[in-house]
Amino acid sequence: MRLVADLMKITAGGRHIAVLDEETAGVLGVHSSDRIRVTSGEREVIALANISANFPQNHIGLYAEISEILHIREGELVEVQLAKMPESLSYVRGKIRGERLRQQDMITIVKDVVERHLSEVEIAAFLTALKIYGLTMGETEALSRAMYETGKTLDFGEAPILDKHSIGGLPGDKTSMLVVPIVAASGFTIPKTSSRAVTSPAGTADRVETLCPVNLSIEEIREVVHKTNGCLVWGGSLDLAPADDLFIQVEYPLGIDPLLLPSIMSKKKAIGATHVVIDIPTGSGAKIKTITEAHTLASDFVDLGNRLGMTIQCALTFGEQPLGHAVGPALEAREALATLEGAGAEDLKEKAIILAGILFEMVGLEDGKKRAENVLQSGRAETKLREIIGAQGGNPNVKPEDIAVGSQTAQVTSDKAGRVLWISTDSIVQIAREAGAPKEKGSGVVLKAKLGEAVKKDGLLFEIYAERNSKLESALDMAKGLKPVVLSKKAEEQMLLDQIPEKVASEKTFILER
Amino acid sequence: MRLVADLMKITAGGRHIAVLDEETAGVLGVHSSDRIRVTSGEREVIALANISANFPQNHIGLYAEISEILHIREGELVEVQLAKMPESLSYVRGKIRGERLRQQDMITIVKDVVERHLSEVEIAAFLTALKIYGLTMGETEALSRAMYETGKTLDFGEAPILDKHSIGGLPGDKTSMLVVPIVAASGFTIPKTSSRAVTSPAGTADRVETLCPVNLSIEEIREVVHKTNGCLVWGGSLDLAPADDLFIQVEYPLGIDPLLLPSIMSKKKAIGATHVVIDIPTGSGAKIKTITEAHTLASDFVDLGNRLGMTIQCALTFGEQPLGHAVGPALEAREALATLEGAGAEDLKEKAIILAGILFEMVGLEDGKKRAENVLQSGRAETKLREIIGAQGGNPNVKPEDIAVGSQTAQVTSDKAGRVLWISTDSIVQIAREAGAPKEKGSGVVLKAKLGEAVKKDGLLFEIYAERNSKLESALDMAKGLKPVVLSKKAEEQMLLDQIPEKVASEKTFILER
Repeated sequence: MRLVADLMKITAGGRHIAVLDEETAGVLGVHSSDRIRVTSGEREVIALANISANFPQNHIGLYAEISEILHIREGELVEVQLAKMPESLSYVRGKIRGERLRQQDMITIVKDVVERHLSEVEIAAFLTALKIYGLTMGETEALSRAMYETGKTLDFGEAPILDKHSIGGLPGDKTSMLVVPIVAASGFTIPKTSSRAVTSPAGTADRVETLCPVNLSIEEIREVVHKTNGCLVWGGSLDLAPADDLFIQVEYPLGIDPLLLPSIMSKKKAIGATHVVIDIPTGSGAKIKTITEAHTLASDFVDLGNRLGMTIQCALTFGEQPLGHAVGPALEAREALATLEGAGAEDLKEKAIILAGILFEMVGLEDGKKRAENVLQSGRAETKLREIIGAQGGNPNVKPEDIAVGSQTAQVTSDKAGRVLWISTDSIVQIAREAGAPKEKGSGVVLKAKLGEAVKKDGLLFEIYAERNSKLESALDMAKGLKPVVLSKKAEEQMLLDQIPEKVASEKTFILER
Repeated sequence: MRLVADLMKITAGGRHIAVLDEETAGVLGVHSSDRIRVTSGEREVIALANISANFPQNHIGLYAEISEILHIREGELVEVQLAKMPESLSYVRGKIRGERLRQQDMITIVKDVVERHLSEVEIAAFLTALKIYGLTMGETEALSRAMYETGKTLDFGEAPILDKHSIGGLPGDKTSMLVVPIVAASGFTIPKTSSRAVTSPAGTADRVETLCPVNLSIEEIREVVHKTNGCLVWGGSLDLAPADDLFIQVEYPLGIDPLLLPSIMSKKKAIGATHVVIDIPTGSGAKIKTITEAHTLASDFVDLGNRLGMTIQCALTFGEQPLGHAVGPALEAREALATLEGAGAEDLKEKAIILAGILFEMVGLEDGKKRAENVLQSGRAETKLREIIGAQGGNPNVKPEDIAVGSQTAQVTSDKAGRVLWISTDSIVQIAREAGAPKEKGSGVVLKAKLGEAVKKDGLLFEIYAERNSKLESALDMAKGLKPVVLSKKAEEQMLLDQIPEKVASEKTFILER
């Protein structure tokens, strides 16, 4: 059937969508969510039909994504027909029924996700089924391969390529900003791509962005790494494993992350990593709550790495409280820089030299941790970070206090004396976000007392930073309600962990960074 | 934040969608699939954010559904802010984790579905989780109640109100066209609403529409029922249990139907039915494949009916082949009318008097089947159908041969002699649809040999009817490939049921009517 193309002037968020009126759809035998094939000369595209009332008959509305592919102009005629259900949809349906999918089936699904042949409804059903049934290691491997094979890859033409990755979820975790310079200063290549916060107060890309640009092209990354051995860039726009970005759009509202393993590992494979240390923060404040869970996940990482030709070691790290003191992009960048300079936070320093040390031992060096500590203490890591900042276009001589943080601050004090028994990372996340993080980069929280530390009555628990007073006020209100830092003289005094129904509703934060 | 309203001139298929450019979304802290609250004076609406490249900054694009609710004009200012995640989404997430939902949770979900606060992605995840985990009877009841309480209801002001419903899936099942007049002719009220084909060759509404209008308003239905005791109308536009239509939009591409029970029973409750016979066609050609499965489903129907205050009986009926001979809207209407006139199909007649008989016995009459047979044979059922046709605006004197069927026909014959051992209903469905059913109402298939019947070499197996020669040709090609009718002299000669991989791919049809 030939229809007149009406060019909508907007994009559909990457989706391939065409609008038909009810009558025309009826004649074509097209129902809502059916796929149609739109052809113009030699070019064709499969689009999802959006059936609209009050749309002109015998016309087809084309969102910008489609008119671009078809090179079509307003009012031109296109040929439109009902398209068959994509083969991948039968595998999605099979997964809903609990069937195990073969490698080829997974590849077909991922290709159809990337080519926009599967709708978000279908992707949501697929991911929900994966979440509920779990994936076999064979399926995880197949998905990982499919995900990096459908995207761009980097090749630095040398080996080994080292990398460090945290599965995320621990506020204040700015470890990458130390590990990358320690490793690069030791002569190893570590092209670190990282993520921005989606639901967290800061991702590594947000932190580094307060020091230098992170939105580099693949060519620019190659240059920076050639010059400095390392980089700290945002991975989101590099088109590495692009299926992941489409999966994440659907996972985000659902608060599920069934593709944690393939999502991370496909990207490591895409940048050519050969040796990767995976940090699994474990504890009540992290994504992974128990050591048992963490062990299972760690073996899966190691196994999957082997299958994909990478050497993996996992570090289970303490995840009962935020790392360091600062939470929020600029505050964390300050803390990372200060720690490289020799001041800063002890737990952060410890974690960074442990992870760098594991990487050193993975490539055959002895006394990895000691070596990492030397690089840090000698100032060579600091110098290297400054080189990287300069190579990425920032000021290499920046001082911690140069990094702008929120001018509006408030202090939260304790109404009794005691030792810190518990810190709710979920609540810290919410307060930092309420204050404006990650969008307002100077906003966040600085902890003044951490687990086990003694606090006097009216002693300082934490400070809130904001760029605007209204945000500061509402973050402060939230802090007073949530009471994220719990004190006690003795552990026995605080046996009640939670009460149901709760007095103050504390949302569970689904941590997501990409 | 105040934004300028740009009115999109089209609807978003009922969805509440607003378009923001990336920069504005960033300032609002809105990610794709987040919800925003759009306020204009006293009116407000929650919309899903569609973040678009090349959309003007500080503007908001409003699809017709939203501009209608807000009574807004082009260029007016609206207040826009990030809206909280709806409470129902936390229940959806709970269901994904396998939690059991309470009645109030289900009501919250259904309300948010109807009010468009949940996106299709979220509904897809919910339905997939329900499909995988199954529902408890308490959840099924809660969903059913929520579904009819959020829609319109009918009250005919008298009792009993009888009804008949098939769970669907058996091609050629035109039984309602006989049961309704048999019951109505006996003085009982039976306001039958039925569905149109979505993936099948004909729904009852499609069949009846070849005789009279079926798209009646609630007021018109009340009149027809007042006059004739019965009706045969399309239920789809009556806004009975509107959540179901939204669920179905998502179920359709996924090929799942986890809400079979609440979908049917909420609509029965909405039209005020007190006594309902549920037909469960059982066999390889039907939705339900085994007697055991059918028994489980039947007890659930009975139990759910009791919980909702309705008396239910279920009939497990033979579902190994199409019912009667005709498949396709007009062909089936012809057959139904001919059967009421005394000719027609024996299995159809038998099924109709059994189901009507069960209804009679449910309201306390004896010898229900005999009574139904008498009403049918006396011609009173035929007279009643003609009354209903007339009352709905059709020609009450229509003869079977007046009903227009496709002028293009082809015959499919047997290449050997034998008895019919097997008929693939899936293949018959596909052939009838390829010929043009249900859209081209005269198209379809007429079986000339049914299970157990003897066929000579070159004897007639079935005829294909189409309105256009091109469709006839492609249906005939399909028929030659699929070979839906399998003959054998003895059962032992045909032990191979299927071969994998198949020689000719036969798609499994997911039968859907609404």
